[in-house]
Amino acid sequence: MPDYALLESFPTPSETPFVIEHIAEEFTSVCPVTGHPDFGVVNVTFQPGPPSAGGTCVELKSLKLYLQSFRSEGIYYEAVTNRIRDDLARLMSPAWMVVRTDWRGRGGIRSVIRATSGDVPTIWQK
Amino acid sequence: MPDYALLESFPTPSETPFVIEHIAEEFTSVCPVTGHPDFGVVNVTFQPGPPSAGGTCVELKSLKLYLQSFRSEGIYYEAVTNRIRDDLARLMSPAWMVVRTDWRGRGGIRSVIRATSGDVPTIWQK
Amino acid sequence: MPDYALLESFPTPSETPFVIEHIAEEFTSVCPVTGHPDFGVVNVTFQPGPPSAGGTCVELKSLKLYLQSFRSEGIYYEAVTNRIRDDLARLMSPAWMVVRTDWRGRGGIRSVIRATSGDVPTIWQK
Amino acid sequence: MPDYALLESFPTPSETPFVIEHIAEEFTSVCPVTGHPDFGVVNVTFQPGPPSAGGTCVELKSLKLYLQSFRSEGIYYEAVTNRIRDDLARLMSPAWMVVRTDWRGRGGIRSVIRATSGDVPTIWQK
Amino acid sequence: MPDYALLESFPTPSETPFVIEHIAEEFTSVCPVTGHPDFGVVNVTFQPGPPSAGGTCVELKSLKLYLQSFRSEGIYYEAVTNRIRDDLARLMSPAWMVVRTDWRGRGGIRSVIRATSGDVPTIWQK
Amino acid sequence: MPDYALLESFPTPSETPFVIEHIAEEFTSVCPVTGHPDFGVVNVTFQPGPPSAGGTCVELKSLKLYLQSFRSEGIYYEAVTNRIRDDLARLMSPAWMVVRTDWRGRGGIRSVIRATSGDVPTIWQK
Amino acid sequence: MPDYALLESFPTPSETPFVIEHIAEEFTSVCPVTGHPDFGVVNVTFQPGPPSAGGTCVELKSLKLYLQSFRSEGIYYEAVTNRIRDDLARLMSPAWMVVRTDWRGRGGIRSVIRATSGDVPTIWQK
Amino acid sequence: MPDYALLESFPTPSETPFVIEHIAEEFTSVCPVTGHPDFGVVNVTFQPGPPSAGGTCVELKSLKLYLQSFRSEGIYYEAVTNRIRDDLARLMSPAWMVVRTDWRGRGGIRSVIRATSGDVPTIWQK
Amino acid sequence: MPDYALLESFPTPSETPFVIEHIAEEFTSVCPVTGHPDFGVVNVTFQPGPPSAGGTCVELKSLKLYLQSFRSEGIYYEAVTNRIRDDLARLMSPAWMVVRTDWRGRGGIRSVIRATSGDVPTIWQK
Amino acid sequence: MPDYALLESFPTPSETPFVIEHIAEEFTSVCPVTGHPDFGVVNVTFQPGPPSAGGTCVELKSLKLYLQSFRSEGIYYEAVTNRIRDDLARLMSPAWMVVRTDWRGRGGIRSVIRATSGDVPTIWQK
Repeated sequence: MPDYALLESFPTPSETPFVIEHIAEEFTSVCPVTGHPDFGVVNVTFQPGPPSAGGTCVELKSLKLYLQSFRSEGIYYEAVTNRIRDDLARLMSPAWMVVRTDWRGRGGIRSVIRATSGDVPTIWQK
Repeated sequence: MPDYALLESFPTPSETPFVIEHIAEEFTSVCPVTGHPDFGVVNVTFQPGPPSAGGTCVELKSLKLYLQSFRSEGIYYEAVTNRIRDDLARLMSPAWMVVRTDWRGRGGIRSVIRATSGDVPTIWQK
Repeated sequence: MPDYALLESFPTPSETPFVIEHIAEEFTSVCPVTGHPDFGVVNVTFQPGPPSAGGTCVELKSLKLYLQSFRSEGIYYEAVTNRIRDDLARLMSPAWMVVRTDWRGRGGIRSVIRATSGDVPTIWQK
Repeated sequence: MPDYALLESFPTPSETPFVIEHIAEEFTSVCPVTGHPDFGVVNVTFQPGPPSAGGTCVELKSLKLYLQSFRSEGIYYEAVTNRIRDDLARLMSPAWMVVRTDWRGRGGIRSVIRATSGDVPTIWQK
Repeated sequence: MPDYALLESFPTPSETPFVIEHIAEEFTSVCPVTGHPDFGVVNVTFQPGPPSAGGTCVELKSLKLYLQSFRSEGIYYEAVTNRIRDDLARLMSPAWMVVRTDWRGRGGIRSVIRATSGDVPTIWQK
Repeated sequence: MPDYALLESFPTPSETPFVIEHIAEEFTSVCPVTGHPDFGVVNVTFQPGPPSAGGTCVELKSLKLYLQSFRSEGIYYEAVTNRIRDDLARLMSPAWMVVRTDWRGRGGIRSVIRATSGDVPTIWQK
Repeated sequence: MPDYALLESFPTPSETPFVIEHIAEEFTSVCPVTGHPDFGVVNVTFQPGPPSAGGTCVELKSLKLYLQSFRSEGIYYEAVTNRIRDDLARLMSPAWMVVRTDWRGRGGIRSVIRATSGDVPTIWQK
Repeated sequence: MPDYALLESFPTPSETPFVIEHIAEEFTSVCPVTGHPDFGVVNVTFQPGPPSAGGTCVELKSLKLYLQSFRSEGIYYEAVTNRIRDDLARLMSPAWMVVRTDWRGRGGIRSVIRATSGDVPTIWQK
Repeated sequence: MPDYALLESFPTPSETPFVIEHIAEEFTSVCPVTGHPDFGVVNVTFQPGPPSAGGTCVELKSLKLYLQSFRSEGIYYEAVTNRIRDDLARLMSPAWMVVRTDWRGRGGIRSVIRATSGDVPTIWQK
Repeated sequence: MPDYALLESFPTPSETPFVIEHIAEEFTSVCPVTGHPDFGVVNVTFQPGPPSAGGTCVELKSLKLYLQSFRSEGIYYEAVTNRIRDDLARLMSPAWMVVRTDWRGRGGIRSVIRATSGDVPTIWQK
């Protein structure tokens, strides 16, 4: 089950703002209605908070283990997206963050969900 | 024939605004003039209304069945696009919505129609 | 329902062997189990029989109407493929023919079915 | 020769603004200097005028015939683009329109010409 | 765990030989060494045995459930491929069959494994 | 109208066999039934006859003008293909030749026609 | 050597503003340090000045000859880009212009240079 | 180890602002935790400072050698990106600069890091 | 330096012949003449020897470490390819094997080298 | 002018047969009729002769300089291809060789020429 405790972070290495994008192409969870697996791509883009404000960056291996913890979870697309957004925002206190999940879909319809945290600049909203 | 009653929705799961995109790649209806089938892709992108304002999200399987209900309907490109926009706006009361239909075309000309509801942010208009 | 009577042909225009490939990218039928629509591409490749042996070529518009006649038919992938092969072989008496159907699939699995008539040269079998 | 009389239109089917894009991938005319044929793609994108203001939408088959009427015309890229813009603006009185022609080119140089009518929103200008 | 009992089949619908290709793009199992998930595409191509010889075709939904049964299994690439080949050959008695697994890989190396059953024609071996 | 007299050739420049492929991506003719233009790609591949046997190679500019001479001709796909094959075989006496026409299609069906002259090696037949 | 005298122009054919893009995919010059050839794509995009202000458009064939005149010139990427921008601005007096050169590169690094003239609208700057 | 001394520059060749983009597709460094190599693409985009303000442009061959100096360095993605940004900003005093590193990734997650210097125009920030 | 001792193997898991393809997309070595790094993709395809004949399969992680051992080696394309072929053939005693290296190239020329061991079936030779 | 003396070679490094493919993507020569430059890709694929028979491999840098020596030469496509084949066969005495030139073309027609030396295996002929 999704496990916040798996996430680790390190202090943002620079006061100068920069942008990080992590693209996890092998995400899978389970549809809570049918029990069939869902497959998707999770994209996390954020400007880390400055170290002087306690901002941190998620550690990559811990992010991988955290995303793997959804593997047996029965959970909707929207809930996956909001959960990741909430957990990573809590972990890192980013200046802003966008979590986008892009699902392979079912029955001829595929979906893309975007959830945000903070004041996302216009060019990063899409 | 297109059937609004097939659509179901669930309350928006979060007060925080987010954006949902459903891409139905297997849409087909019938040309009202020639009787030949038309094939296209229907893209529905919207920011659900907040639950506190009664906003809802369309349920995926009901969306599939609703789109299938156009299968034997003789209807123009523009009417398909406006009808889907009207039905989904009535169902969900979204903050904003874009319905884009992308048709395979006939006679060397293919068409893309975009209809909107509410105040669509600039970056989502195209 | 699939209707052989819609098919028309014209005499092969040359005694010299040649190869024709028709690719119908907008095929749709209905799954006999679930009632949901199936979408696919139908590829018909053949060497027409020589006119001296009564060989003919399927007329393009009649092929379109024939393929449209599957639109409301509940029928399996294999049966679609074999039915088209049987009807076109009966119509044209080709030297050889390959009918390949390439389906968009369901539940993460897509399928390709190949049925043949006559002695297909090796390079055309795949 | 390009023939405005071939164009037909129908009243815009909705007061709510929407955007239509027609992409004609099989356009050909003749170079007035060399007499060799030119090949290109014509893209017409517009927001139809509202029906209350007499706005109309070009009918697709008439658009096809109109574009075919350039087939034997000796005419420059710029003139093709401006002519289509002028004729369609006169026909439809759109809120705004962009005509883009994308040519296969000659001698290692290919060209793209864009002509507009009305006040085109920024995101549609390119 | 991989479960042969999930597989169902139906009699080959035609005496005339034909070829079926099922492409499962959402396969996942677990690396037995690291415990990390593996992701891949499973391609099953076969010529069904003739019905007169008891040949059958695997039923699509049962194939999906069977492949899902590897989801929590710690198993090597080669073993996945051979296991699927063995189970499907036992189920269907095909004239010939190729099982190809195409893995996303780890550490900059991705792998493709091919296992066969029966006398596979040359053009289908790759 | 298609004009053989436009074709010019030069003696094959080498006794050693070699293979030439000309790909004309801007071919257009007219459908004899509907009067609408057809668009396609013409591929001519051949091994020129040796100069000692009077073999020649088609001159490129003359090939362009010859293909342009179909521009106003009402002619079927098969006839275009066979006509080009016949004219070029008569002009060049090639060791072997394949003429492939690949059409953009109509009504959702596109076609590819292959006509040959002489004893085409297997790998060049497709 | 680059030769301004090769450039010819014609009066802008319309008072209504429009945008022209010429893409020369076969540009080559010589590296002044190593003497090795450089290969690139030159993109010239501009809004011609209005005819009432003496604005002109570069003639295509003269543009081709002008770009060919760099073939034996030893010249840096930046100088090529600025030289073309200067020569074309002098020739045409455009409302605005962007010259972009996109080089195949050397030693694993490829470069793109953009030079402008006049007040380029934001959407055309990249 | 990363060596600033390898970098060389030349005075910006024009007072008129322009934009340079260098794309190094063959970058490699070493992961400081696992010791395994990392592979990525480094994109450096900048508007050189004007020569009147002492602005310079990095010399291409020296940039190649500088980037090669990371080959044996154990260093994190973020540190690579910030280090390159700092060294090039110090060297050139650009009007603005964006350094983007795009990594092939590990364990199914790939990353993109963007660091900037100066006041980057909106369209160049992504 | 390339180190055979890094390679490990395990007994072929099945007597039935099958084919394994490992694709290492992140290979780098050093040019022995210029000292500049070379980058390429290494593809190893083989049919493992049967276990009854002592055949083995290379272990994936050891293959990764072995390929990394070329990182600082000054070595030509041909030598890399032959060395990998020799080391893996010695390790595994495969029924047959193809090692293909595909290099990014230098100075506008890229190269592909193929070395083999044993009697490679025709369809695997290219 | 094309200069054989620029070519250098080294002894084939192995008695075991292998295949080398060099792809020069930046070839240019001049059309002897119009004087306009031609651009193409030159692919040289060969099995070097064994060292015991005096077989050699062309040295890469010398191949680059040799191909650059066509830069100002007025020469037909066929002559370029045959000349390269003749010069490299003379230099290397390969077991077999294929020289393929793939030209960007003129007037809507592009060409591919293949010339060979020795007994080329079937799979390498195309």
